[in-house]
Amino acid sequence: MGYDALHERFARIGDLNHALAMLSWDEAVMMPTGSGTVRGEALATLTGMVHELTAAPETGELVDAAAAEDLDPWQAVNVEKIRHDWVTARAVPADLVRALSLATSACEQTWRGARGENDWSAVVDGLHTVVDLTRERAQALAAARGCEPYDALLDNYEPALTRTAIDPVFDELGAVLPDMVDDAMARQPMCALPRGPFPIERQEALGRALMAEVGFDFERGRLDVSHHPFCGGDPDDTRITTRYNEHDFLESMFAVLHETGHAMYEQGLPKGWRNQPVGHAGGMALHESQSLLMEMQVCRGAPFIEFAAPIIQRTLLGAETDAPEWQPDNLVKLAAKVERGFIRVDADEITYPLHVILRYRLETALLDGDLAVAEIPDAWNEGMSASLGLSTVGNFADGCMQDVHWFAGLIGYFPSYTLGALMAAQIFRAARDGIEGLDEAVREGRFPLLFDWLRERVHGRGSVKPSLELVADVTGARLGTDAFLGHLRTRYGLG
Amino acid sequence: MGYDALHERFARIGDLNHALAMLSWDEAVMMPTGSGTVRGEALATLTGMVHELTAAPETGELVDAAAAEDLDPWQAVNVEKIRHDWVTARAVPADLVRALSLATSACEQTWRGARGENDWSAVVDGLHTVVDLTRERAQALAAARGCEPYDALLDNYEPALTRTAIDPVFDELGAVLPDMVDDAMARQPMCALPRGPFPIERQEALGRALMAEVGFDFERGRLDVSHHPFCGGDPDDTRITTRYNEHDFLESMFAVLHETGHAMYEQGLPKGWRNQPVGHAGGMALHESQSLLMEMQVCRGAPFIEFAAPIIQRTLLGAETDAPEWQPDNLVKLAAKVERGFIRVDADEITYPLHVILRYRLETALLDGDLAVAEIPDAWNEGMSASLGLSTVGNFADGCMQDVHWFAGLIGYFPSYTLGALMAAQIFRAARDGIEGLDEAVREGRFPLLFDWLRERVHGRGSVKPSLELVADVTGARLGTDAFLGHLRTRYGLG
Repeated sequence: MGYDALHERFARIGDLNHALAMLSWDEAVMMPTGSGTVRGEALATLTGMVHELTAAPETGELVDAAAAEDLDPWQAVNVEKIRHDWVTARAVPADLVRALSLATSACEQTWRGARGENDWSAVVDGLHTVVDLTRERAQALAAARGCEPYDALLDNYEPALTRTAIDPVFDELGAVLPDMVDDAMARQPMCALPRGPFPIERQEALGRALMAEVGFDFERGRLDVSHHPFCGGDPDDTRITTRYNEHDFLESMFAVLHETGHAMYEQGLPKGWRNQPVGHAGGMALHESQSLLMEMQVCRGAPFIEFAAPIIQRTLLGAETDAPEWQPDNLVKLAAKVERGFIRVDADEITYPLHVILRYRLETALLDGDLAVAEIPDAWNEGMSASLGLSTVGNFADGCMQDVHWFAGLIGYFPSYTLGALMAAQIFRAARDGIEGLDEAVREGRFPLLFDWLRERVHGRGSVKPSLELVADVTGARLGTDAFLGHLRTRYGLG
Repeated sequence: MGYDALHERFARIGDLNHALAMLSWDEAVMMPTGSGTVRGEALATLTGMVHELTAAPETGELVDAAAAEDLDPWQAVNVEKIRHDWVTARAVPADLVRALSLATSACEQTWRGARGENDWSAVVDGLHTVVDLTRERAQALAAARGCEPYDALLDNYEPALTRTAIDPVFDELGAVLPDMVDDAMARQPMCALPRGPFPIERQEALGRALMAEVGFDFERGRLDVSHHPFCGGDPDDTRITTRYNEHDFLESMFAVLHETGHAMYEQGLPKGWRNQPVGHAGGMALHESQSLLMEMQVCRGAPFIEFAAPIIQRTLLGAETDAPEWQPDNLVKLAAKVERGFIRVDADEITYPLHVILRYRLETALLDGDLAVAEIPDAWNEGMSASLGLSTVGNFADGCMQDVHWFAGLIGYFPSYTLGALMAAQIFRAARDGIEGLDEAVREGRFPLLFDWLRERVHGRGSVKPSLELVADVTGARLGTDAFLGHLRTRYGLG
């Protein structure tokens, strides 16, 4: 009775979350420019309703009643996840929630204008407020849960993740990657860029064709256009987006395949547990592992590109071709280009973790009080100079102002990207070990071999285990760097 | 205090309604085919939340407290409208609401399959249940509000509308229109059909161009494609749809202009009262009057077609033309074609009311118990034979099974279409009397002259008055048939 009522309550919350997911997708993809205020109010009201239903005393009572019942293992985890949500929802005082919401909206809006102007001074005060309030929030969460403040923030994005788990792997990556970047760049082979323009309709047709080949279910999902690619919606209506560059079809193609990785995860979540916390995807790190497994491990590799090349040629050119720039060996080189750049979202897979590690070090120092907001630009420049040899002195727009995260209060989010890359490599290594002839299957477009394996071991398990435990289960080893580094050495021909 | 709390409560309800409007639009326009079940559940949950918040005892207490405060006239009407919603929401027992919801879903689904099969026997039992439960619901509403049962149903679609108001005008139209149809068909001039195909992109460009000319605000609205044209969303994000026939551009053009009429009304509602009942559009009849004023009174008339012809030619053909079938005089004839047909939604403006009157007579008889569900096909055939000379014996698909309304439990809705046509004619006559040079302005594309007039007198007044009173206010006369019949005589050259 307690359990059933709790389940029913979270089905209602799930319906509100469905509405929120769809309205957010619509805002990014469909909404007219002048409708933002009303949409913002509606999103705030629905978010408030989710919070009210979650934090209500009744939820806690139902959790206690349910926990005393005879539950199956998934139900038991569901109850504990709901208890965790309940504690979290009640931990932060309402006036702090409100203050933080106002501060982050204001700061994010200022940032949107100031980034283009390279105007750091415009955002310092706002960011100061956001960091202070986020620290307060982290302390409140930490007190309620008995953990460290930064760990309380990490938990928002990847449940149960801790700094203790991150530090050793990030230390190791930070130490070895700069030399690997040098090495990879020195060995970088010559390659030729297929010449465009490539009409958007054809690029879109290519994206759809590859999504369908991989196994994306278009009866429960869509592909559209937005300013930044993302995967939105929910497991029963999974909507991915991309953007198109008429002069480089590889950008949209790999963006679509990346988001398709996210989408395959969503579409593979356990059907019987939709709308219940235990049936949701694991945290952001595990989610990113599925997009990176798709993009980096599978689709940028030779077997996939050999499979895709004729489809690419037919869709973009109307027919297959012998022109050398369109052949798999050239496309494989294009897909593995390494470049030292300022911008995280444009980074390749070797330099990407260095961007993340810098942000991780700075945001933990900010939260610990070891770094002041005013000191960020100098610390950023030092970090970028040391790891990638790039000076960001006076270049805020391509430096500490490039990402929205901190200005929007998303502290604790960045580590997920690189943990996801490590998980992707480690899970894919296990898949290749466990699936006979996987490379051959990819080369021939037989993707169910991989996805059946992933659905059984990862997608179909929702969040019945913390992601790090799940990865250890699936791969037989706790998360480390060796699969990732091994993958880089192989792909980039490093010592 | 009571008023402010009530206002705030309905702002929350308004945000839920925004979500419902957007999710419904998405369902018709964007949603993948396999996502219907989840969407249906989410819509049901949000609808249930709106009902709970409306029907809660607290709402009634706040209404009583607010009514005792010193309110401005709009606030006072808002409180009374909320009281009316509260009484309505509480009038029908929860198990009857549930039974009716189940019965209408089941019956509508059966109808969707059975219509194509012309299988009346498949739907009789379901419709019987729907009619019985609707009668029960009407009685419960009537008891709570002290009115007649059918009037209680009318009120759902057009507040305060009564059978007493409808009967004399429908009697008169039913008596005179059949002869007018004969007369108009006898005088129908020859006209030539511009030959297609007309690519959908060009038809869409034409629709957008005319919407923009008329004054549709694309910063707060969209045009898309759906199975049936509709106007959805809300005043701050008004989304209309159409469908395209490659061989007849006039279909989509007039459908877009019709929906633009609805949209101009939504976009013109009083901004300070968004989300409050008094700020909503009047009922379905007044809403239809605004789409029909646009389509029938303005856009199918010679001044508009003279204005639009060069735009039509340039957009569809790439340049203006002297070809006779593209000239205004021919397009005007095409826009005023009269035809006796089985299908209401395809009917012209002279025959349309005859379709509606038949449904009105049958549904009032059903509700009164004077007609059994099993007798509908015979009664339909009699009605169609008498008014349009068409036999529907054995032809259920094009007869009593053509519309979803009754099968979906929408009894009391049909009269709105024809009352809307009468209102449109009467309001437009008042506009022509009141606005110097209106025809000339339309011919020159100066639409603000008309819409400023409508915004002041109709759109901007929300539902501060019952629609029939508003129409009387605006036109100086209670709603009658003479403006409509006068319009028909002029347009179709009748005695």
